[in-house]
Amino acid sequence: MAHLAALPRNESGIATALDVLRQRLGPRLETGQALREQHGHTTTWLVNQPPDAVVFAQSTAEVQDIVRICADHQVPIIPFGAGTSLEGHVNAPAGGISIDFSQMNKILAVHPEDMDAVIQPGVTRKALNVHLRDTGLFFPVDPGADASLGGMAATNASGTNAVRYGTMKDNILSLTAVLPSGELVKTAARARKTSAGYDLTRLIVGSEGTLGLITELTLRLRGIPEAVSAATCSFPSVQAACDAVIAVIQYGLPVARIELLDALSVRAVNAYSGLSLPLSPLLLLEFHGSPGGVAEQAAVFGDIAAEFGATGYAATTREEERNRLWQARHDAYWAGLALRPGAKGISTDVCVPVSRLADCVTQAQAKAAEMGFMAPVVGHVGDGNFHVLLLIDMADAAEVARAEAFVGWLNDLAIAMDGTCTGEHGIGQGKSAYLGRELGPGALTMMAAIKRGVDPLNIFNPGKMALPNG
Amino acid sequence: MAHLAALPRNESGIATALDVLRQRLGPRLETGQALREQHGHTTTWLVNQPPDAVVFAQSTAEVQDIVRICADHQVPIIPFGAGTSLEGHVNAPAGGISIDFSQMNKILAVHPEDMDAVIQPGVTRKALNVHLRDTGLFFPVDPGADASLGGMAATNASGTNAVRYGTMKDNILSLTAVLPSGELVKTAARARKTSAGYDLTRLIVGSEGTLGLITELTLRLRGIPEAVSAATCSFPSVQAACDAVIAVIQYGLPVARIELLDALSVRAVNAYSGLSLPLSPLLLLEFHGSPGGVAEQAAVFGDIAAEFGATGYAATTREEERNRLWQARHDAYWAGLALRPGAKGISTDVCVPVSRLADCVTQAQAKAAEMGFMAPVVGHVGDGNFHVLLLIDMADAAEVARAEAFVGWLNDLAIAMDGTCTGEHGIGQGKSAYLGRELGPGALTMMAAIKRGVDPLNIFNPGKMALPNG
Repeated sequence: MAHLAALPRNESGIATALDVLRQRLGPRLETGQALREQHGHTTTWLVNQPPDAVVFAQSTAEVQDIVRICADHQVPIIPFGAGTSLEGHVNAPAGGISIDFSQMNKILAVHPEDMDAVIQPGVTRKALNVHLRDTGLFFPVDPGADASLGGMAATNASGTNAVRYGTMKDNILSLTAVLPSGELVKTAARARKTSAGYDLTRLIVGSEGTLGLITELTLRLRGIPEAVSAATCSFPSVQAACDAVIAVIQYGLPVARIELLDALSVRAVNAYSGLSLPLSPLLLLEFHGSPGGVAEQAAVFGDIAAEFGATGYAATTREEERNRLWQARHDAYWAGLALRPGAKGISTDVCVPVSRLADCVTQAQAKAAEMGFMAPVVGHVGDGNFHVLLLIDMADAAEVARAEAFVGWLNDLAIAMDGTCTGEHGIGQGKSAYLGRELGPGALTMMAAIKRGVDPLNIFNPGKMALPNG
Repeated sequence: MAHLAALPRNESGIATALDVLRQRLGPRLETGQALREQHGHTTTWLVNQPPDAVVFAQSTAEVQDIVRICADHQVPIIPFGAGTSLEGHVNAPAGGISIDFSQMNKILAVHPEDMDAVIQPGVTRKALNVHLRDTGLFFPVDPGADASLGGMAATNASGTNAVRYGTMKDNILSLTAVLPSGELVKTAARARKTSAGYDLTRLIVGSEGTLGLITELTLRLRGIPEAVSAATCSFPSVQAACDAVIAVIQYGLPVARIELLDALSVRAVNAYSGLSLPLSPLLLLEFHGSPGGVAEQAAVFGDIAAEFGATGYAATTREEERNRLWQARHDAYWAGLALRPGAKGISTDVCVPVSRLADCVTQAQAKAAEMGFMAPVVGHVGDGNFHVLLLIDMADAAEVARAEAFVGWLNDLAIAMDGTCTGEHGIGQGKSAYLGRELGPGALTMMAAIKRGVDPLNIFNPGKMALPNG
């Protein structure tokens, strides 16, 4: 895999910086191999490139110190949240220091009247929602994994309810970050709206640690809905299910979640969770609102689904039944892996205009079958985003190469449909070859100009996001 | 006004570029004084600094040519949409070329299934919505003026229904822009979600022409709501009205618009439009949804408002009556001006966390009274954004100076409340002194680094947004 070639290492700089940092941080600098490998590894299928040391930061001022020390010696710094990235974001191709933010996990303030919270980056989304429970508020972005909110910000994560509540970009009011110079940047006031200067918030969100190290986030919160209703139904084809989704969105139905499982995913969850869902494409929905509102939404959805040949429509507001219905979706990843014991999953992440979704999913299924892959599909179909989970024997180099070929083929197909190679996982190392194909040379030029302007020494997460390594 | 000092002019470069551009564009380059002044002027109260010439671009390729010619001779370029900016964005403090985009006004594609449209930047929001009418879709961002969508993007405009539909940032999927090098950048695919690289879309949106000249926009559209309901009621105080707004937002009521008029604004519209609304703070609302949904929303709002002492609550779905209720808001600017015939309006634009809104509005009213200003207040209160309209005799230098002092005082008050000096009008020239106070030196450093990286010759709209002029 050419794009995972190691980059040149600044050996003397790394050695000196390690000495200085060790004096500064004592036992909070660690160099044990297992810990370093864990900090490079993450859940990705990509080759492990561990950092030279892991440091556990405890304050913004300390992050500034660490950055200044690394800048003095031109040593790479890679931020680490919970390690749930899928695209090699935390690998260290040029070596350097991994900053682990897990000890910066304080919730600094909750403002119920303004419906926002100020937190440190190591807080996980589940920890935040547990903390918020008594306020009647919650933070809606849910990528599945219990990721750190700093990591979710750095990769612009989203997930199942982005169709209603948006992505991390839509739910961060402001942040503070340490620049490669060690200077601190506050990107915005706590107001809900601003036109004050460049949108540094949304530039740093999704920049994958290449521009700034996030040390504080001000998050937009939502009211826990008064009522929640869940629904499922089966469709004769992926096309029919996608057509129903388009009709739902056009109708303006404010669905909180609308997820597709293809027939193979349904088979997987039936086996894994002891269910007996019909072996055909399935939509799972969640509605949030007032009791009357969710009932109306569920009824409207039922009518729309029926027009597209849906069967077995079931909706419920009872928590137990809702959980049972959603079990299928929550188990999909592990259920998929269980289809081929011992296999590792490689997840694609394309996102296309919704009108092209059925065509894209159908072509992907056919191609996967033609190439001999077992590859269940799940999708955040309200946004046009879906994941093909290729079940791969990582010991079989030829199979891994074929998987890479499939991923590339699907990325190019999505790009040809005016879509993106990544709806929510980010570019990292895994998709760096596709960014230029998707956006053309002008975007790469502009991204490189921004990177050079902000990080002239290229010490923040080098070798990621198709940025130049010079 | 120190911040409107002229910048050094590159006389020989401007003269040469004008010659070359004239040969290239013929009569589409104009140098008449009235036209130049109109292109520097806009609706702002700031001093007019006209460009040396106005060119009317007709295609993206032509914009690239113009930029290359200006770059060759280091001549400033200022983009011009409809001239409705309030903060001096289109002034030419170092001279140069104004590019007028009004002839790039084609709607290139509408994709009803994907609910998006691809347009040129000179299309105005009203023209787009007329074009869309038969599709059942509309573009929601409404700043009041019939601005060009390119200009609305460049300043991150919003307006009355941002509380429901968001700002320009939330409603632009992708754009193409010409960089200062003449290179073209496409910022994103047409998918609804992406994590592919830096968010160049949202970096260019709100960058006020300092990073790229927008030549194409892909806009997110919404379904025209099945039912619309309007409501008004009066409150005993601004505090009571703001408390009701907080309760509405916390409840999660999806209001499409929620606007405040203070008692003076009510007096102004009564006089201007022959109404007889009670002379106390007024909230005006609009609800969008299904017939049942808007009825439910209106009823819930009525209950909440009553808890905070509201009187005279009226809600209606009939278009005629809705228009009558909203007349007050639509007329507020002109009605305000009519309070003092011959006066010019200077509009503030602060936005604060909603919990601080009542305090901020009340202090602003008291300060304006203390300083002897007639100053009606209107506010997009769901977002914490409000405008004080100072009615000023521009011939009275002392009064203008006092108005500037008031604007500065209010900006600093909002900043002290963790708010912003600009919720939707932008920084331009008028607020450049406040950006650093609001965000601190780190943000200015990062913005300057981005600007230097993308526009090393500083030819794109120099002298705006507190960016360095070196």
